Amino acid sequence: MPVVDVIAAKRDGQRIDDDALRELVLGYARADVPDYQMAAFLMAGRLRGFDDREAMTLTEAMLDSGDRIDLSDLRGPTVDKHSTGGVADGTTLVVGPLAAALGMQVLKLSGRGLGHTGGTLDKLEAIPGMRVALSIAELLAQVERIGVAVGAQTADLVPADRRMYALRDVTATVDEPALIASSVMSKKLAGGAAHILLDVKTGAGAFMTDPDDARRLAELCVRIGNEAGRRTAALITDMSRPLGALVGNAVEIVEAVEVLRGERAGRFADLCLELTGRLAALTGIAGDADEGRARAAEALSSGAGLERFQAFVDAQGGDPRVAEDLSLLPQPAVERTVAADRDGHLRAVDPVAIGRAAAALGAGRERLEDTIDPAVGIELLVTVGDEVHRGEPLARVLARGAADAERGAGAVRAALTIGEAAVQPPPLIHHAIEAQAR
Amino acid sequence: MPVVDVIAAKRDGQRIDDDALRELVLGYARADVPDYQMAAFLMAGRLRGFDDREAMTLTEAMLDSGDRIDLSDLRGPTVDKHSTGGVADGTTLVVGPLAAALGMQVLKLSGRGLGHTGGTLDKLEAIPGMRVALSIAELLAQVERIGVAVGAQTADLVPADRRMYALRDVTATVDEPALIASSVMSKKLAGGAAHILLDVKTGAGAFMTDPDDARRLAELCVRIGNEAGRRTAALITDMSRPLGALVGNAVEIVEAVEVLRGERAGRFADLCLELTGRLAALTGIAGDADEGRARAAEALSSGAGLERFQAFVDAQGGDPRVAEDLSLLPQPAVERTVAADRDGHLRAVDPVAIGRAAAALGAGRERLEDTIDPAVGIELLVTVGDEVHRGEPLARVLARGAADAERGAGAVRAALTIGEAAVQPPPLIHHAIEAQAR
Repeated sequence: MPVVDVIAAKRDGQRIDDDALRELVLGYARADVPDYQMAAFLMAGRLRGFDDREAMTLTEAMLDSGDRIDLSDLRGPTVDKHSTGGVADGTTLVVGPLAAALGMQVLKLSGRGLGHTGGTLDKLEAIPGMRVALSIAELLAQVERIGVAVGAQTADLVPADRRMYALRDVTATVDEPALIASSVMSKKLAGGAAHILLDVKTGAGAFMTDPDDARRLAELCVRIGNEAGRRTAALITDMSRPLGALVGNAVEIVEAVEVLRGERAGRFADLCLELTGRLAALTGIAGDADEGRARAAEALSSGAGLERFQAFVDAQGGDPRVAEDLSLLPQPAVERTVAADRDGHLRAVDPVAIGRAAAALGAGRERLEDTIDPAVGIELLVTVGDEVHRGEPLARVLARGAADAERGAGAVRAALTIGEAAVQPPPLIHHAIEAQAR
Repeated sequence: MPVVDVIAAKRDGQRIDDDALRELVLGYARADVPDYQMAAFLMAGRLRGFDDREAMTLTEAMLDSGDRIDLSDLRGPTVDKHSTGGVADGTTLVVGPLAAALGMQVLKLSGRGLGHTGGTLDKLEAIPGMRVALSIAELLAQVERIGVAVGAQTADLVPADRRMYALRDVTATVDEPALIASSVMSKKLAGGAAHILLDVKTGAGAFMTDPDDARRLAELCVRIGNEAGRRTAALITDMSRPLGALVGNAVEIVEAVEVLRGERAGRFADLCLELTGRLAALTGIAGDADEGRARAAEALSSGAGLERFQAFVDAQGGDPRVAEDLSLLPQPAVERTVAADRDGHLRAVDPVAIGRAAAALGAGRERLEDTIDPAVGIELLVTVGDEVHRGEPLARVLARGAADAERGAGAVRAALTIGEAAVQPPPLIHHAIEAQAR
């Protein structure tokens, strides 16, 4: 079927049959199909939609465009977790070590990405000496030894997705459920884990602002994962405000370590325990999510999680003393406090505005060639629902200089809404989608 | 406004403001905007549509991407005619000389195009010696001398349209009214004529199969032309079957000459007179279309049109004796007659099937680098509504060899529907759209 006919069929709202869709994706990965034809197809799909079968075929074709990692030699249950992204969402830094402490095998491939802060790799690289450019063989050996390894997505895994994602980004075709699901799930399937947990964010700071859209996306991913023979489940979680209190790169390591030390409670810690507990239930290490959460909490309070974090940092060349001495992390040149200018209740923290403020400080990148400053960021000292008093510190801005700090403080203040009435924050977990029976 | 935001706005069904749309088109013409972004924009526009203002802006931007021809030094009224294309639609070959004979100034730029047969240029090149690669200065001098010249579209006229049309062709975004109208009208406006007549085809062999779609397209083109200060009118005409009796390249010269000699009546001749008459009315040479048709018929019967055709062929290096001796045109190696296999009435001639049969004989090109055989083609000996008898010749197939002729005969027979009941053919002219007052 000529490519132009496939484009025309999707343009006219038809479903594309398996062979034609598969050939389109693989042809694009081989660069036989030019960008402009794929761009037209993606826009037609964005406006006409894809059904579940097409989403599955897209996923499989992208998966077949590259290599797969074989985890079958690992002894424990293999797990992977994926978040659709948001502000101050560094759960991998805690969930990886905790899951490893519970006997799971966590090989996580991450990207750097564009956004308000760096990706997981950038955050890890804030630790002196930490290496993320490991070969698959090195990562596998490390997982076998200590249960957890985090490396960079390689060029050989799902090359079709890399090309398609770059194209979607510049053609306004990112936000289509089947395209998102196939992008996420092809990478998870290529990663080889037998158990997959998705954390789909919703709210103003998420890709899917509407909870129903987030739920539909999560359900689609779960169907694709289970159909492909992996035990796959999902949570829909709140991103109406930043997840953690710290936004940046080194500071997100700080928050993870503080959680692992048992020194920091809050929604970030809660979600880390929830995700670890759900992974434990998914693998059968725990009988259900409640038991899983309890096992995760034990691993936290016993110090087993922190110990696994240190082993992980050590294995990848990082300085493990960071877990005891956070001052070994890069420190900002300037700190500035943002104080409340009135009495009231903190009613909202705009996650997009906080993200932009962090990016403006140098914590994120707009283009792949931009350099991230690991030391800069924002610490929120109050949380939605808190009562605040005039003059009370609301946040700290960590900056490269006084001018940046001043601008950052203004941006952070503008991102916080203080009002008379108290407010009940939205629940952290909107919804859970269980793995389907195989 | 970043291009990706323009794409997103059109994707979401918004109208694009003049500056952003203009910059997109001119940026694309300069190759600053890549093909893949234009492809996504075109598909978004194909599915969301454009309003009249956007169509006008698209036209003006494409016009401004290149040069314009200045016809202001010509003494008579300048005219241009455009057909949206169909099978056996060589009206330019007759209308050009007839209009010149009535005192109009006809500078026509044509393409070669892809399709069932060649374009006007290919048909003209079937005449021994005929040159179509003339400079604008040569064309202008010729029009001044004899009233008519036909040349090739140059690379300097409407380069944005050339790039966009090539892209639309391979991205299934051809059939959008504003894109079609702006493509047609930017070329007509660049051609410089003060009076423009559009012949928008409808029916199975036309781009717009539905008469209402054809009418909407015609109305849009007429609005754009008049808005731009040109007296512009349109006809919606029938393409439910081939217009002429002869389909090919040299054979379409044969049909044109026979019409100009007054030897061949029929729908093709009727439409040539109608178009010439409407041009005469549009320019004020005739008081109305009826008077215009009468003047055109006079120019035909007096031989003034044939004389102008000969002068035109002679001026462009072609052999003017062709008008007296049609055997000077390229002749096919093999002729084969298709006979009726039953008694009945000819109920339909499938224009697409006839076009494909002609293309298969070698009369058309699929790719720009394909070579056309000027001698091959098809002659239809009966017309829709005729009574036919078993064994009676229905058509002649002109081919390069016996095998081609045999296949062609089968294809032509399959394109003709013979049934019991008589049938009334559809009217030649569906509708006329007059020029609007300026």
